[in-house]
Amino acid sequence: MQLDELRKAARKIFDAAVRAVDAAAAVRRHLRREDSRLRVGQETLDLGDVRQIVVVGCGKAAAPMAAAVEDVLADRIRRGVVVTKYGHVQPTRVIRIHEAGHPVPDEAGVAGTRAILDHVRGLGPKDLVLVLISGGGSALTPAPVDGILLSEKQALTKSLLACGADIREINTLRKHISRVKGGQLARAAQPARVVALILSDIVGDPLDAIASGPTVPDPTTFADALRILDKYRIRGEVPATVRARLEAGTRGEVPETPKPEDPLFARVHNLIVGSNIQALEAARSEAHALGLTPLILSSSIEGETREIARMHAALAREVRTSGNPVTPPACLISGGETTVTLRGSGKGGRNQEFVLAAALDIAGLPDTVILSAGTDGTDGPTDAAGAIADGETCGRALALGLNPRAALDGNDAYPFFEKLGDLILTGPTNTNVMDVRLVLAG
Amino acid sequence: MQLDELRKAARKIFDAAVRAVDAAAAVRRHLRREDSRLRVGQETLDLGDVRQIVVVGCGKAAAPMAAAVEDVLADRIRRGVVVTKYGHVQPTRVIRIHEAGHPVPDEAGVAGTRAILDHVRGLGPKDLVLVLISGGGSALTPAPVDGILLSEKQALTKSLLACGADIREINTLRKHISRVKGGQLARAAQPARVVALILSDIVGDPLDAIASGPTVPDPTTFADALRILDKYRIRGEVPATVRARLEAGTRGEVPETPKPEDPLFARVHNLIVGSNIQALEAARSEAHALGLTPLILSSSIEGETREIARMHAALAREVRTSGNPVTPPACLISGGETTVTLRGSGKGGRNQEFVLAAALDIAGLPDTVILSAGTDGTDGPTDAAGAIADGETCGRALALGLNPRAALDGNDAYPFFEKLGDLILTGPTNTNVMDVRLVLAG
Repeated sequence: MQLDELRKAARKIFDAAVRAVDAAAAVRRHLRREDSRLRVGQETLDLGDVRQIVVVGCGKAAAPMAAAVEDVLADRIRRGVVVTKYGHVQPTRVIRIHEAGHPVPDEAGVAGTRAILDHVRGLGPKDLVLVLISGGGSALTPAPVDGILLSEKQALTKSLLACGADIREINTLRKHISRVKGGQLARAAQPARVVALILSDIVGDPLDAIASGPTVPDPTTFADALRILDKYRIRGEVPATVRARLEAGTRGEVPETPKPEDPLFARVHNLIVGSNIQALEAARSEAHALGLTPLILSSSIEGETREIARMHAALAREVRTSGNPVTPPACLISGGETTVTLRGSGKGGRNQEFVLAAALDIAGLPDTVILSAGTDGTDGPTDAAGAIADGETCGRALALGLNPRAALDGNDAYPFFEKLGDLILTGPTNTNVMDVRLVLAG
Repeated sequence: MQLDELRKAARKIFDAAVRAVDAAAAVRRHLRREDSRLRVGQETLDLGDVRQIVVVGCGKAAAPMAAAVEDVLADRIRRGVVVTKYGHVQPTRVIRIHEAGHPVPDEAGVAGTRAILDHVRGLGPKDLVLVLISGGGSALTPAPVDGILLSEKQALTKSLLACGADIREINTLRKHISRVKGGQLARAAQPARVVALILSDIVGDPLDAIASGPTVPDPTTFADALRILDKYRIRGEVPATVRARLEAGTRGEVPETPKPEDPLFARVHNLIVGSNIQALEAARSEAHALGLTPLILSSSIEGETREIARMHAALAREVRTSGNPVTPPACLISGGETTVTLRGSGKGGRNQEFVLAAALDIAGLPDTVILSAGTDGTDGPTDAAGAIADGETCGRALALGLNPRAALDGNDAYPFFEKLGDLILTGPTNTNVMDVRLVLAG
């Protein structure tokens, strides 16, 4: 396959991957109405036994998910509200789309979360709550318990980030000062039945971490939360209201988050409707249809972007030199989400940086193409989803007076690929299952 | 396959990989005597046309390579000398084993290189020079041209390293102040025929870089060498003798290294007898024989060790969760050589650090084993070749009071694995084709 064809193939494969995890399509695939029955994943509900259906949700894909639920169940939905990021709205009929701040939570998010809780309270055992969860849901639904201000919650998060606490530790704290996170939304909806449809944006699809798990049991405790503050020696510096809440929790004066053994979870069904591996599997099908031998490496790749890029480039070289791990024409596929340690002050994102680092390592390699892009259509603080490069990219860049090594050193991939015309621009995609990376060898 | 069996399988697969690239076996495989003919790779020489055979060489595997050549050609070898690292000797009959300093060159190396040059001078067109090259050969054969002291050559290397010059740039300089590097050994041996048997210890097997390519054309020039000094603004600080040599070179007052178009190379045959991919292919065969589905990822993996480890761990997780890139029981195989950016002051090596970083990412994963070790039997400044870990390693370590995260942060993998009994100890292996990494999923 010629280089030009390979580049077109790469874009087609990426588009197919994104299509496969379209949030609305993902919901429709897992929520099917068959006469008076509702199939949710592997389970079946008799709609005749359901008194009323309430829809709530949060996340960057909340609006298309809500619209898809209406397509299936519009006549049966009594009321609904979902909280999404400003500008991520779509027309709906019954379900209200509430806009709020992301990634920095705001008072609109607090109000939206209050609306969600109001929607699920006072339901009966014959009612059904559909919860639509996608990435970004945690920041979009700040719901500090009474007595803690949003600004105090933000101060806590800032302290935890500054001392190097990891995301699991931060979530433990968040869940214990929130009214919805850590399974508390599912508890608030009792005695209604709860079905959560989840679009995963976290490596490994950990249910309790996606949007901080509002419908998922929380194995962590108030004591764990205090231990984390002590571990990083920040108990003294967090807001007094937070400290008081956690200490009251350890004394049993306020209720714990619901634990895995809580019987309420017998009435809760959490279902992943879309995740990175589904996007990769669609990429595999498309690559195969285009005459390439596909190989999925992993959907859970994390780590420092430029180093992960080097390993992908090493695989590209091996395909060319020895036909391992697959013989060309081939397409290696990987997913997950890497991180970038900023060294420069340029403009870019992890996908663009990945492609730039890989381009340096495949320079001169014939008929080799690398593409990396975010399935949500955005990559860092840019309007691009990612970028595409091949073995001639660095040569072409140098001829244009661009310095690929300097661009990488300065975390400045966006202007580099912009000038080459090699940005991947998709606009909003209505989904978010992290990134897709492709290595094509013709 | 049970965890215990998997661990044993991993060790067997690594041992098979090392056996396949045994330096003596590699030489014997590529140098065969059939009656009066000598087969060297794909070529055939009529020994009746050869007047005398001289053997020279350098590198950490020089002694076993010399012994193997004697096994094939002992009665025909007129004289020989190879330079190897102190303590890496083996009994030979005709070929003299000369010991010298590595990685820091010493005067013994200077004397050894002089002996090599003496051996190949004054030969005729019917003579054959066999050159045995392996990793470490460059440092073992310091041969600064007349007027430059070994200490001045060392000062040059130190300046280049300090300013961040890459290995290609350093080699360009080295070749232009040396009497053997950059094809000059092949030129010194003219008009004799030259056959070089090369055991590759560099990613991608670049002939001109292994031992600084004593038998390989050098595309770089004196002008390139000066440009590098100017690029890093160190022309003023390098020894005056070095500067004078390079400037004389640009004026044509001293001969250039031989270039690719030089007709002398029609009489030179460079043959890779062992390289990382051969080790990986042997690992593949052994894994298959043990009932595992093998997959070679790449033989040319470089990059920051802990990040490369994370990607291997991500592949291990994917094998378990979705059966990609291969279904268990499986064995993923990779090679090359990663680097470690030192953060702590502990004891370890890149392979031990790789296994420790991977162990953290596979903690809790059932029936998963990771092994990484150097084919030369050494890993960093330790007596171990590498280490082995599984999904239970971190739990076992914590129970023993060891902190895997702290050990990784401190680059202190050796005592960690020593206490667990999980170091891979092989002793000297008589070969050196970089590292082999294995990911087994039972």
